[in-house]
Amino acid sequence: MSAAAVIDGQRALGFDLEAWSRVRLAQVEHALSQWVTAEVAQGLDHGAPAALVDAMRYAVLDGGKRLRPLLVLAAHEATSQSSAGDHPQAALRAACAVELIHAYSLVHDDMPCMDNDVLRRGKATVHIKFGEAGALLAGDALQALAFELLTPPDDGVPATVQARLCGLLARAAGSAGMAGGQAIDLASVGMALNERQLREMHQLKTGALLQGSVMMGAYCGAPDARALDALARYGAAIGLAFQVVDDILDVTADSATLGKTAGKDADHAKPTYVSVMGLSASQDYAQQLLVQSLAALDASGLGCTQALRGLANAVVHRAS
Amino acid sequence: MSAAAVIDGQRALGFDLEAWSRVRLAQVEHALSQWVTAEVAQGLDHGAPAALVDAMRYAVLDGGKRLRPLLVLAAHEATSQSSAGDHPQAALRAACAVELIHAYSLVHDDMPCMDNDVLRRGKATVHIKFGEAGALLAGDALQALAFELLTPPDDGVPATVQARLCGLLARAAGSAGMAGGQAIDLASVGMALNERQLREMHQLKTGALLQGSVMMGAYCGAPDARALDALARYGAAIGLAFQVVDDILDVTADSATLGKTAGKDADHAKPTYVSVMGLSASQDYAQQLLVQSLAALDASGLGCTQALRGLANAVVHRAS
Repeated sequence: MSAAAVIDGQRALGFDLEAWSRVRLAQVEHALSQWVTAEVAQGLDHGAPAALVDAMRYAVLDGGKRLRPLLVLAAHEATSQSSAGDHPQAALRAACAVELIHAYSLVHDDMPCMDNDVLRRGKATVHIKFGEAGALLAGDALQALAFELLTPPDDGVPATVQARLCGLLARAAGSAGMAGGQAIDLASVGMALNERQLREMHQLKTGALLQGSVMMGAYCGAPDARALDALARYGAAIGLAFQVVDDILDVTADSATLGKTAGKDADHAKPTYVSVMGLSASQDYAQQLLVQSLAALDASGLGCTQALRGLANAVVHRAS
Repeated sequence: MSAAAVIDGQRALGFDLEAWSRVRLAQVEHALSQWVTAEVAQGLDHGAPAALVDAMRYAVLDGGKRLRPLLVLAAHEATSQSSAGDHPQAALRAACAVELIHAYSLVHDDMPCMDNDVLRRGKATVHIKFGEAGALLAGDALQALAFELLTPPDDGVPATVQARLCGLLARAAGSAGMAGGQAIDLASVGMALNERQLREMHQLKTGALLQGSVMMGAYCGAPDARALDALARYGAAIGLAFQVVDDILDVTADSATLGKTAGKDADHAKPTYVSVMGLSASQDYAQQLLVQSLAALDASGLGCTQALRGLANAVVHRAS
């Protein structure tokens, strides 16, 4: 199914994911552009931080599908039906913070000592443009900025929400989440992993931050225990589906469509779903995970889940 | 004045900094050892995160003066005289979180694309022992862990304190703090900075996290506005003093005493206080900053500032 077909399918269900996303993406882009400048320029009159901010902006702005921010905002909308306990400003901050963590991970992942990649989203990678030390520092500063965004001294976001969002993001990003998954990835080059080991690696490397995005969005609303449990299962399913599809696209798409180097997993002898299960079984598995994610939403007791449904479809049926 | 003379001086004032520090250092070491293991092992049965945790522990444990944790704990003790609003568990978490940020910055700073140093605290640097990618990921995971430590779901730390500590640490570590200072440092190699530019660089690179340590400790107690203002000035003065003394020691001490490569600033054509002001004027400046820091404490209205005084003395009169 093509992306256009998915969007048509959503329209047929009375929900226009493209229109929904367009409005949210504009909010996120505006907020990112505002927050990856203002907070760092304060009180400085030396030239060098400007170079750091340039590298941070280059890494974050004008690129990427913004899947994680959209998941945050969709999960928030699904759980914000009650008038009490709704924090839209926190959701926008969470959406941007998750994207900053994702952006920093790409900057560091592309460095010569990791994947040594020169192309990302169709542009030169950060270390190519700003040097290795510049990329290292830009990534470090982006991670710190994510937590700064979540803890505004005055923006009407309650401290309980701030603290919970920080905790969720820190766990999703750290050694038991994204960074841990990258370490497994690094250690697994050239190794024969079985399907369980591959799943564990990807649950950490990609899944933790995608699931974390859903849970952060949920906690900006007023979810009950049933909804939280269902959203955790939804997030786990699409987190894994994202990586299965990534592995499929690495062999079926070309670099121009992907905006990054295609075929690099095989070149680097990295175990992937395609190498472990084969292409056809991987495609079936992605469909199963989509069904699981939608079933979780059915069981959530939440009314307004169209955007989450649409995003799950888009994850599995994307072309890049 | 030697370190022993400083300790004798403190004893003469009825306060034994060495004994005070010994108890707190044992608490911090125990907590770090506990927290840089347990929280990451949860639910994983794959081998590679163990390698990541090994690198993280190597970077953090059994080394360093732990100045930042001691500043957190001393500032907490100075502001915890009231029975209300005292959070010792938060202070211990803040002490460890600040040290994790400091440790990650050293790991990344030592990497080949930055200072390319092979010796740290008398041991091989992390990238020498665990490879460059291992060092990159260990640093990234340590930064995330710092924010995870500050946001325990259940440890009796109020959300208001958790959120404030995260915000202070994120700002101190990020592009308007430590990472920004490192970017200026990087850009200033081989350049002639004046004293104002040098001060700005060091206020960010080293000062922000030292001052942040003091403020985080203070917010674990119940400081009034006068105390907060005084502690901010104390933190700024010792933050700068630390770097002035660092620059002095780089030319006056040997590598064995420092536990790292001596003379490397001059080798790397980095501007330092000694290169800008000369050795004698730098030593005078360090003394002036000590006097400023103690005067700030005099004006704080706080009763129990002996540990903060002792630490200021120790910063300026240290031998390594």
